[in-house]
Amino acid sequence: MADDPVLASYRESIDNIDAALVLLLAERFKVTQRVGRHKAELGLPPADKSREKAQIARLRQLAEVANLDPDFSEKFLHFIITEVIKNHEKVRSA
Amino acid sequence: MADDPVLASYRESIDNIDAALVLLLAERFKVTQRVGRHKAELGLPPADKSREKAQIARLRQLAEVANLDPDFSEKFLHFIITEVIKNHEKVRSA
Repeated sequence: MADDPVLASYRESIDNIDAALVLLLAERFKVTQRVGRHKAELGLPPADKSREKAQIARLRQLAEVANLDPDFSEKFLHFIITEVIKNHEKVRSA
Repeated sequence: MADDPVLASYRESIDNIDAALVLLLAERFKVTQRVGRHKAELGLPPADKSREKAQIARLRQLAEVANLDPDFSEKFLHFIITEVIKNHEKVRSA
């Protein structure tokens, strides 16, 4: 497969997009760390179900417009939020 | 929590980043769909373990530079690749 120029070109695009995704995720976690500290200071609970519901609805809609499977966008958000809540709980119990 | 201006501002940033992530994911799936069709045409297998290994190593390194947990970046890539392979298999058996 290494000498397939079509595949190689697609893979270059995927690698560019993945780099952008990882950097955006790094920035997202910087913000959620601030949220975690803020919530810990005020004694607020790590999770917020109504906020989560609004985020899911918004991302599903955005996914639809962009031709991405809305179910996947929801699974993706859950994946991220699970990680964030783990971090909030660490901050809280630290 | 709704009238906490600090939290509201952080959430605005998170929403902006999430919109960018969803649009980038949509673009990534457009490219992997092309890869899927290409692989199906040539009879190539959906998964490619050596490619995957190289992607993981690269993203872990990038995550480290960006102060993101490298384990999380690896979990994230697995999460995406699992979805992509599911789609490749669908294309293949269609």
